[in-house]
Amino acid sequence: MSTGSIDSRRFRERFDEFSAIGATEAGGVDRPSLSEANERARDTLVEWFREAELTVTIDEMGNIFGRREGSDPDADPVMFGSHIDSQYNGGRYDGVVGVLGALEVIESLNDRGVVTDRPLEIVAWSNEEGVRFQPDMLGSGVYTGVFDLEYAYEREDKDGTTFGEELERIGYKGDRPCEPDDVHCYFELHVEQGPFLEQAGLSIGVVEGVFGFSWLDVRFEGQANHAGPTPMDMRHDAFVATAEVTRAVRSITATGGGDLVGTVGSVDVWPNAINVIPERVEFTIDFRSYDNGAVDAAVDRIREEVEWAADREGLEYEIEEIMRVDADPFDDDCIETVASAAEASGYEYTRLVSGAGHDANYLNTVAPTSMIFVPSVDGISHRESEYTEWEDVVAGTDVLYRAVSEKASIR
Amino acid sequence: MSTGSIDSRRFRERFDEFSAIGATEAGGVDRPSLSEANERARDTLVEWFREAELTVTIDEMGNIFGRREGSDPDADPVMFGSHIDSQYNGGRYDGVVGVLGALEVIESLNDRGVVTDRPLEIVAWSNEEGVRFQPDMLGSGVYTGVFDLEYAYEREDKDGTTFGEELERIGYKGDRPCEPDDVHCYFELHVEQGPFLEQAGLSIGVVEGVFGFSWLDVRFEGQANHAGPTPMDMRHDAFVATAEVTRAVRSITATGGGDLVGTVGSVDVWPNAINVIPERVEFTIDFRSYDNGAVDAAVDRIREEVEWAADREGLEYEIEEIMRVDADPFDDDCIETVASAAEASGYEYTRLVSGAGHDANYLNTVAPTSMIFVPSVDGISHRESEYTEWEDVVAGTDVLYRAVSEKASIR
Repeated sequence: MSTGSIDSRRFRERFDEFSAIGATEAGGVDRPSLSEANERARDTLVEWFREAELTVTIDEMGNIFGRREGSDPDADPVMFGSHIDSQYNGGRYDGVVGVLGALEVIESLNDRGVVTDRPLEIVAWSNEEGVRFQPDMLGSGVYTGVFDLEYAYEREDKDGTTFGEELERIGYKGDRPCEPDDVHCYFELHVEQGPFLEQAGLSIGVVEGVFGFSWLDVRFEGQANHAGPTPMDMRHDAFVATAEVTRAVRSITATGGGDLVGTVGSVDVWPNAINVIPERVEFTIDFRSYDNGAVDAAVDRIREEVEWAADREGLEYEIEEIMRVDADPFDDDCIETVASAAEASGYEYTRLVSGAGHDANYLNTVAPTSMIFVPSVDGISHRESEYTEWEDVVAGTDVLYRAVSEKASIR
Repeated sequence: MSTGSIDSRRFRERFDEFSAIGATEAGGVDRPSLSEANERARDTLVEWFREAELTVTIDEMGNIFGRREGSDPDADPVMFGSHIDSQYNGGRYDGVVGVLGALEVIESLNDRGVVTDRPLEIVAWSNEEGVRFQPDMLGSGVYTGVFDLEYAYEREDKDGTTFGEELERIGYKGDRPCEPDDVHCYFELHVEQGPFLEQAGLSIGVVEGVFGFSWLDVRFEGQANHAGPTPMDMRHDAFVATAEVTRAVRSITATGGGDLVGTVGSVDVWPNAINVIPERVEFTIDFRSYDNGAVDAAVDRIREEVEWAADREGLEYEIEEIMRVDADPFDDDCIETVASAAEASGYEYTRLVSGAGHDANYLNTVAPTSMIFVPSVDGISHRESEYTEWEDVVAGTDVLYRAVSEKASIR
């Protein structure tokens, strides 16, 4: 157990004050991207960045940067951070731990009067959650050139309001060009959003990479007839086929490889009436694994299952892969830096792979990257009941402090 | 093949004129209960009733009656009819065939100058479909004492407008008390809404009764976690359990008895997102059979399947039977009257049981009742593509003419 590089009490006070912004009665926060609560959270963050003597810049996507100069004016900065937007009625920890943890690292360096060789730049990325404006990870996506700025500005929420309009309205459309600077490396501290660390009784996860995934849209089209007079052998029931495919997703994950997961998450049925045979069902399948071949094989198998289910039931069908992202291994050197920091801190840790995507995935395309995970109690995230023990938040921030310090020094 | 008791051409002209009211581009009609199109259809019907020298009365539920006196002033009337409200974007034939067929029977009797012993009373029941105001068969339900008049008036459409307000607005809240008179017997001509007659190549179905049914509401409640980092063995996926139960419904119908049918028709998933494990699913099950024991056994079996699926997946569950209606055998004498009429007409016919409910079910509780079915092409109903060959409509009306004539005569 580390003696600790950071000030747990100061950090906790800040965390509690921040959690009050957009707080929900059930103990979560409701701060979706560019909402009024998100605006207040941004204002608070900028104020705290300035109090920590950081130079604040806002880029064209509303990504908020706080820079602390190092002794070498020509050196590329070490960047670290996460996001402060939340799901609708989401949790306090997701993203915030990584941003306020980054700030606590800066404050602790300030306390000790440490001047690093390299500059440090901490960051809060815009619109990570993708609940109000799709897609998710929009701020880091534009920064790393995955999306055009104009594309991002034109994203609409369900009321037709655009990301660009809202960003301007809340005063966070900045001047700094949204493009990758020369970044020496990037670290992100985040809650695991899964159960592994808690089950293993460990405080720290050294993240070696992120699962690849496939997203499939499936549509079955049959015949809507009356549920009474239509005999079973004359039915073309789109929902029965959907049920068969859902079971097949389970079967495929049971035999498709160690870490393959599969989910039917969104299902819409027409006409959706108690006494009418479902004519049309549109549903989604999400397959993920760190093994790209396992995802490919699962997609191949489910395509056959969809075809067979349609044949059996006499349906038209469509299946379309709407997104395919390969598994994303992080930088070996950054991974070892985090592992060494965890080792040095004395916290028990393991190496693992993230099932969920993060801003770090995009940063990994422009700079050497790795992540630090801390446990999520019961593996819960994206809900008000999301919870991480404070000692684990402190442990993760301690490891971040050590990893950043290591990478900011020029040997 | 009958020479025919009725005037096919006159009937066809009327049917086509009526089909133009609220006609849809795809060849159906959009005349939901108490809509503007339903009002115009009612006005047209009342005008035609009067032209046929019928005495028109409107009751408190907007049920429209047309009475033709017989020679015996003390005799109870023979009643026959159906409904003229449609599904949203429904078909031309459902209900209308029975009402305009009844009018054609009257016209044909008028043509021949036939005076029956008993009075004849034809009827168009209000709100049979139950798509704008639930429940269905509301007009005949109040008439037969199944529902209170006030209950019916308070039914709201999705905009909160009540049945009572709308009935008054369109001018069809009549004075005649909505209560069962002494009715000698009731006949209803209707499209089959199933495939049996067409498959068998027959024009006429002698309907011996109507399936009983059970409607079940099922709710599964699990845990909404991220579809990536949550391993398969830690999931509590409400939709996987729904898929299992849907397959069980199919298995149960395959082994539960000859005419047992089962449908999962309505399914709602929360939060319904591509990358979130479904936390809650609410869905419905509809079991029907002419064998009450088969329905009871299916309900017992599916209750066990729901419990097992919840146990396997680690879910909370609720299952509630929201409606249970026993199979409804029609009156033997009325059935034989229809069979004899079909026999006499020379049309090929079979005896069958209706899978769908009809106003005739409620009438059967206050008067001897039976029904006449004509084929539905491809078994399709409740859709714009609903279709019945005109020669079959004529055949059914011919049989109705003969059955009514038989029952209206006092030996």
